[in-house]
Amino acid sequence: MAEKFVYFFGNGHAEGSKEMRNLLGGKGANLHEMTSLGIPVPPGFTITTEACVYYFKTGNIPEGLKDEVENNIKRLEEITGKKFGDNKNPLLVSVRSGARVSMPGMMDTILNLGLTDDSVKGLAKQTNNERFALDAYRRFIQMFSETVKGIKHVHFEEILDTIKKNAGVKNDSELNAEHLQTLIKEYKTIYKENTNEDFPQDPWKQLWDAILAVFNSWNSDRAITYRKINKIPDDWGTAVNVVAMVFGNMGEDSGTGVAFSRDPLTGENKFYGEFLPNAQGEDVVAGIRTPHALNEYSKQEKNRDLPTLEETMPDIYKELYDIAKKLERHYRDMQDIEFTIERKKLYLLQTRNGKRTARAMVKIAVNMAEEGLISKEDALMRVDASRINELLHPIFDPKAEKHVIAKGLGASPGAAHGKVIFDPEEAAELGYKGESVILVREETSPDDIKGMAKSKGVLTSRGGMTSHAAVVARGMGKPAVVGAEDIEVDYEKEEFRVHGLTVKKGDYISIDGKSGEVMLGKVKTIDPEIFEEFGKLLDWADEIRWIGVRANAETPEDAKKAREFGAEGIGLARTEHMFFKGERIYAMQEMILANTKEEREKALSKLLPMQREDFKELFKVMDGYPVIIRLLDPPLHEFVPKKDEQIKELSKRTGVSEEKIREMAESLREANPMLGHRGCRLAITYPEIAEMQVRAIIEAAIEAKKEGIKVKPEIMVPIVSLKTEIDVMKDLIDKVAHKVMEEKGEEVDYKVGTMIELPRAALLADEIAKTAEFFSFGTNDLTQTTFGFSRDDVGRFVPKYIENGLLKDDPFSVLDQDGVGQLVKIGVEKGKSTRPELEVGICGEHGGEPKSVKFCHRIGLDYVSCSPYRVPIARVAAAQAVIEEKRKRRR
Amino acid sequence: MAEKFVYFFGNGHAEGSKEMRNLLGGKGANLHEMTSLGIPVPPGFTITTEACVYYFKTGNIPEGLKDEVENNIKRLEEITGKKFGDNKNPLLVSVRSGARVSMPGMMDTILNLGLTDDSVKGLAKQTNNERFALDAYRRFIQMFSETVKGIKHVHFEEILDTIKKNAGVKNDSELNAEHLQTLIKEYKTIYKENTNEDFPQDPWKQLWDAILAVFNSWNSDRAITYRKINKIPDDWGTAVNVVAMVFGNMGEDSGTGVAFSRDPLTGENKFYGEFLPNAQGEDVVAGIRTPHALNEYSKQEKNRDLPTLEETMPDIYKELYDIAKKLERHYRDMQDIEFTIERKKLYLLQTRNGKRTARAMVKIAVNMAEEGLISKEDALMRVDASRINELLHPIFDPKAEKHVIAKGLGASPGAAHGKVIFDPEEAAELGYKGESVILVREETSPDDIKGMAKSKGVLTSRGGMTSHAAVVARGMGKPAVVGAEDIEVDYEKEEFRVHGLTVKKGDYISIDGKSGEVMLGKVKTIDPEIFEEFGKLLDWADEIRWIGVRANAETPEDAKKAREFGAEGIGLARTEHMFFKGERIYAMQEMILANTKEEREKALSKLLPMQREDFKELFKVMDGYPVIIRLLDPPLHEFVPKKDEQIKELSKRTGVSEEKIREMAESLREANPMLGHRGCRLAITYPEIAEMQVRAIIEAAIEAKKEGIKVKPEIMVPIVSLKTEIDVMKDLIDKVAHKVMEEKGEEVDYKVGTMIELPRAALLADEIAKTAEFFSFGTNDLTQTTFGFSRDDVGRFVPKYIENGLLKDDPFSVLDQDGVGQLVKIGVEKGKSTRPELEVGICGEHGGEPKSVKFCHRIGLDYVSCSPYRVPIARVAAAQAVIEEKRKRRR
Repeated sequence: MAEKFVYFFGNGHAEGSKEMRNLLGGKGANLHEMTSLGIPVPPGFTITTEACVYYFKTGNIPEGLKDEVENNIKRLEEITGKKFGDNKNPLLVSVRSGARVSMPGMMDTILNLGLTDDSVKGLAKQTNNERFALDAYRRFIQMFSETVKGIKHVHFEEILDTIKKNAGVKNDSELNAEHLQTLIKEYKTIYKENTNEDFPQDPWKQLWDAILAVFNSWNSDRAITYRKINKIPDDWGTAVNVVAMVFGNMGEDSGTGVAFSRDPLTGENKFYGEFLPNAQGEDVVAGIRTPHALNEYSKQEKNRDLPTLEETMPDIYKELYDIAKKLERHYRDMQDIEFTIERKKLYLLQTRNGKRTARAMVKIAVNMAEEGLISKEDALMRVDASRINELLHPIFDPKAEKHVIAKGLGASPGAAHGKVIFDPEEAAELGYKGESVILVREETSPDDIKGMAKSKGVLTSRGGMTSHAAVVARGMGKPAVVGAEDIEVDYEKEEFRVHGLTVKKGDYISIDGKSGEVMLGKVKTIDPEIFEEFGKLLDWADEIRWIGVRANAETPEDAKKAREFGAEGIGLARTEHMFFKGERIYAMQEMILANTKEEREKALSKLLPMQREDFKELFKVMDGYPVIIRLLDPPLHEFVPKKDEQIKELSKRTGVSEEKIREMAESLREANPMLGHRGCRLAITYPEIAEMQVRAIIEAAIEAKKEGIKVKPEIMVPIVSLKTEIDVMKDLIDKVAHKVMEEKGEEVDYKVGTMIELPRAALLADEIAKTAEFFSFGTNDLTQTTFGFSRDDVGRFVPKYIENGLLKDDPFSVLDQDGVGQLVKIGVEKGKSTRPELEVGICGEHGGEPKSVKFCHRIGLDYVSCSPYRVPIARVAAAQAVIEEKRKRRR
Repeated sequence: MAEKFVYFFGNGHAEGSKEMRNLLGGKGANLHEMTSLGIPVPPGFTITTEACVYYFKTGNIPEGLKDEVENNIKRLEEITGKKFGDNKNPLLVSVRSGARVSMPGMMDTILNLGLTDDSVKGLAKQTNNERFALDAYRRFIQMFSETVKGIKHVHFEEILDTIKKNAGVKNDSELNAEHLQTLIKEYKTIYKENTNEDFPQDPWKQLWDAILAVFNSWNSDRAITYRKINKIPDDWGTAVNVVAMVFGNMGEDSGTGVAFSRDPLTGENKFYGEFLPNAQGEDVVAGIRTPHALNEYSKQEKNRDLPTLEETMPDIYKELYDIAKKLERHYRDMQDIEFTIERKKLYLLQTRNGKRTARAMVKIAVNMAEEGLISKEDALMRVDASRINELLHPIFDPKAEKHVIAKGLGASPGAAHGKVIFDPEEAAELGYKGESVILVREETSPDDIKGMAKSKGVLTSRGGMTSHAAVVARGMGKPAVVGAEDIEVDYEKEEFRVHGLTVKKGDYISIDGKSGEVMLGKVKTIDPEIFEEFGKLLDWADEIRWIGVRANAETPEDAKKAREFGAEGIGLARTEHMFFKGERIYAMQEMILANTKEEREKALSKLLPMQREDFKELFKVMDGYPVIIRLLDPPLHEFVPKKDEQIKELSKRTGVSEEKIREMAESLREANPMLGHRGCRLAITYPEIAEMQVRAIIEAAIEAKKEGIKVKPEIMVPIVSLKTEIDVMKDLIDKVAHKVMEEKGEEVDYKVGTMIELPRAALLADEIAKTAEFFSFGTNDLTQTTFGFSRDDVGRFVPKYIENGLLKDDPFSVLDQDGVGQLVKIGVEKGKSTRPELEVGICGEHGGEPKSVKFCHRIGLDYVSCSPYRVPIARVAAAQAVIEEKRKRRR
């Protein structure tokens, strides 16, 4: 252990630097760094994380720390010319925690430490403002009591209210010195009642109590939970920063503010920020006065007429601007700066990389790379891939007013508003006429697809991140909020009720598919634009990444969109979606109602030409790229109508009695359809369906080939758990394919592979790879079976699990690398052990989620496949995975 | 490869022996062995399996085989004094296949090979019976054509029918020599039409055609499928046995029959069998004449008045008896012997270990061990553990007449008959009154348990081997046939229809819970008795086995039964079953309808004393043995009534409106309840239930302990997939337990563990074992999730999979060692890597299935737990596992 526990900074010299983040914490390291850079920072010192760790291990502060702190306070006194606890010119300090990473639940800030009955007089003299000094003192007592001693806020509020009432005033600022004296007395009484001791009049006791309180806040319940979830080691500990106070409220030549080295909203390379004259940080937070813009560029509606800092203090503005630019160059990122001006002297209190909008994130990263400030790789790493979403969908105007009435899961990002419609048919009809519709359902089923397609957005009161509504909406790039459980949908009355409010059919609502918010009325949206820097970023990503990116798509429109977004093929075409288009569902229903193989084949023969056309279109759009077509997956009951009206119609159309149709529906009913008669199980018991589909695929491929298209069909068998299943299916596919090729006199290369979406398939991948020529990990279903979570039912507990820290992420959004990922890894290893050239990819929803994409890269998948709108995300994440790996190896 | 391909036996000398089963096949090896033992066997020779393998590899017979066969025929000619193809004294032979193990789909037997237009005259002379010779010839032509040349049976039947019609006779035996001559001519024509060649008049050609046909039958589709399913290597090949014919139909001093060295029905050590004078094997099979008993002991109703062999040919009887005893001692097992007497000379044609009833299996094994013929270990290995079932339940009288109307899955063994009742309430009522009832349902739910408990048996038209009905019935030791899909249940009309037959409420049916047969009326049953040898066998098993055997039981009655059957504790007490008893369901429903934690707790407090009593009873019965109690597992909707009547009643009882109850039921509805809000997920969202249960367990344990009972409670958390889940649950359990112990001033040792029933739990067992003190593998659910098979829905495809060889066994009956077993193994290894003393067991249905029990032994589980009625099976299988392992190591 180091012998030194305290690092000083001040007067242009610092004992620490930005590299010492582990020892000094993030905040501390930056204060040291700024000091060394010659930037005006109030002097102070940092107590190291090692001191904190020692304290946890032994229960005592390390030997020597006491002396070090005392010596450093002396150094502060020397530099500032003030004296700790002095009744003439007192040294006041702030005490703040500062871990390696910012962490909620940790103690934040105590200001004005050092104030006592004595020194408050000094402060009054120093500032020439008794009221100000007394106000600072009563605030300090409260802050110290609450933060250091854990005394409840409400005690202080009650007293304050009583005194304001007695004084006949409304605002704290109207209290005069006398009131404040009373308040200080009462506050001290509260302190004594709760701690059994007097409020400390020794600034040293205040200081040590505060330091230990910062240490102990590392072990608050909230901090521990946060660390557990975020896998932050418990033994890092926190540093403590003790900094001399400066005051922005010493008159009109003082002030405090926040500045950004570039515009955090647009990413423009323009200095941006605001400030409040004659104020402390607290006042900015309180929001009583309107802050002024730093410069013309930063002006908003609210402060259009207020003078800018550039106008009122041009020298200070220039100094601040130069510092911001210097810090940006130094940290090589856009900086978010806190500053205070005390009597025309500028002090920097903090700098850190600034938060920004998704657009600014991309623009700044790319611009900085172009300016030579960072490398292309750095630019890519700067981008939070998961936020790219925001660039591909309309968003709500951040300035618009919102009346949020419910909150669900943001299942498919984007902003939409429209009339509430409950019936999918009606939604389809109105949508077709060009009306904006939000389809509201308890949950959706394949029957509703047409209605969803013609709606602006979808809202459901049930289901999770991979419920039918969520998956289909994402596939369509359509905003969806799902599982808004507070909403009670009443189909009969055509209304929904939520928290006492009733929303009727035809009323307007708005939904935010990212935040999950449901709002009343039409909230204004703004359209996205594909801007220059975004395109560049994606090109850079493609240069770097190894793993391929394909799209999940079955319509030509989706396939085209996917190509636009850079997809290199189709990883999953869900043929069943094609069965819902127009009249096709009728043929499907006839097939199901058929009694014999012959009748089934007859019905299927109606579907054959339609499927062939679908596939041909896909091959054309994907000319030269592979197209993976999955054979029918869902159980048959999904195609059978449940509603009386639909049954009546089907009966009329087919001549089959309604009773028979109901019986059929009943006989197809399953206790757990997810684990039922579907996928290849259906194909094995009713081979006619698969035979028709294979015929359609091969015929389409031959036709396309004859038209000069380069076709690469890959036929995928779903829900395999046994090697014998893929054996039987490969036989069937090869037989039909060869028959068609013979008929047509034209050869076509195709592959036969399987989804790996059940644990058993992953565990026996070596066996299955003897027959399968490619694997596609269906991580949606694999997640369901590995966890035993039904994606349609987890809404009842997964959100609570996440809230309580049992789960970090929804495993249907972010691949569970520990469990499901283990199976994927086993599947890849075993599969390649049998067939080294095996093509392996992923086509679950995770294929467009950055962390999951990186995992897929690391375990050696050949490609990820996701909905077209997530292709750009995957491209960036895939590049980041390569850079991360490279940097890890070099380290 | 050996240079020798043919092994001769005859005249007391044999070139082979019983040890040469791999080379000579099972049948051949035994013929050689008997010859060497001096037992009269007709001379013959065996062509080795190596010759067959060579033939497959090269397409040719091995060099030298031709000469060897010719030489061996010569040796036969020498010994018999007959000549192959001779027209005076022809040598006739039988040709039979004989693989290492008996295998369906292989060619069986060709008799009288060597008959030609010439030699048939010789046979006529030899036997002095032209008609006999001609009949033998026409049979031979047909047999050869069908078996060797694959000509269809129907061709010969048509001709035979025509000729019989023309001759005006009804039976084949009435045809005279002239008719037979015509028939032979016509048969030869059929042969020529189908093969384009004349029927071979060269006996050598006949012989070689037959030999190659036997070889080729190894590769028949049926044989290949059988091998694939039974994992028999394709490269074993088959041997061919060529044996000189002897004739049992040469007059009243001839005959043929079958004998057993002990009674195969009872296991009594009594010589047993029957024979037919003046007959060949074929005649016995045809069943035209009634066979005579061998001796008084073997007499049955049908042959009470016919003379026994012992009476008519005492010397031959004595010789046969001595041979049977000799063979039994030699083979150390009960022998099933085929014999022929040709003109007062006895020939043995085959010996093999005899098939027997379950009772005889146990009795013979134990008796032989007591006689010193075999060891105790041998005795245990002789027992097919899966057949022990038959000894624990009433069975149908094998002699009773049955009218089978449907077939389902034999889900819980035993025989039962009773009145058909569809309503569980009514079944409970009638059962209570002492009436025999068979409860018939589409499928059962927890609501039906009372009705099931009071019925004699259960029949469902849906569900698989681990459907609710199957599991509960097995637990109750009650016969059940499930998934009888042909049955159409009509609750409204209170009848079921099957194949045009209507069975109404109150009609009698019988069900066989082993075979799955459903029969009309009352089929006579016989009660089992626990006989001496069975008890001994179980004691021996306990001496040898390592793995513990516990029972799945929650009622004191079941627990007592389990102890009687030798269970060493309870491996799974399903607390939810207790919630259905009597009035308890009401409290449970109140709890579900409650709006607040307080209301829930109030309802639960009613359940507390009842659960406490349940647990106390269990502890008492299991005094000194561990009792694993699983916290509530099923989703809440299982407790909410669905029927109007029940809803009305619940509404009346609770004052909650029917509408509210329906809403509640609707809101609890799940798309896939198997993967839904259940197990610890419920306990974490509504901790009150688990808290009540833990309190009941600990209170019961303390009370029992105070009464001097040794209590070993183990509290088990279901459906864990995350380490954080078991963490939260362990906290909850410990908190409640310590609180109760403090209140009562008494300590109790308890363990907290988890089910491992989801793939993720097995994959992360190392993490979970940090908290869990024991694991119990719930292989029912683990099978569901690993395969993605819903046990309630697999009826639609699993039976077809088994039929078509995609699956060897129903994975819900026999543990899937390749997939699910892999996860269990991973779970054990990872769990013990974290906590070497971790207790690991299995409590799925597989815990009572012999192959699965052996697997559990091999992978090092501490115990298996199964329904009480399967405990004896598990005990025997566990001992067999040890013996198998020991023998494998020694080899």
